[in-house]
Amino acid sequence: MEKTKSPELVRLGENIRELRAKVGLSQEDLALQAGLDRTYLGGAERGERNLTILSLLKICRPLNVSLSILLEGVGE
Amino acid sequence: MEKTKSPELVRLGENIRELRAKVGLSQEDLALQAGLDRTYLGGAERGERNLTILSLLKICRPLNVSLSILLEGVGE
Repeated sequence: MEKTKSPELVRLGENIRELRAKVGLSQEDLALQAGLDRTYLGGAERGERNLTILSLLKICRPLNVSLSILLEGVGE
Repeated sequence: MEKTKSPELVRLGENIRELRAKVGLSQEDLALQAGLDRTYLGGAERGERNLTILSLLKICRPLNVSLSILLEGVGE
């Protein structure tokens, strides 16, 4: 049975994917630069991962954005 | 041996504590309203917890702030 995805995590995942596309990084590149596993990042982009604040910060750096940009619209 | 605290988590903890004081909630009240364990929240305020995005959102509601307020200055 598939768990219902949290809309907040889905929105976060969309933000990550969009910002990653904007800087022209593949999922693999971003995972490598953020120090995260590629499959973990894939799950995050699909809204299936409840990321921690430190993981979010790792993702911000290669995307060259602040936390508030990464989290835009999340939980609003 | 005590682990070195992450400055990002310390800042987040300070934000939680300040915003909680501003709305006049005790740690126990906020924990109850956020649906988190009081000792967990205490650890978060001391910068000892790497909170997830869904836990952060639970804390935002009773504090009546957005994520971007809760995360002000974190990782900057």
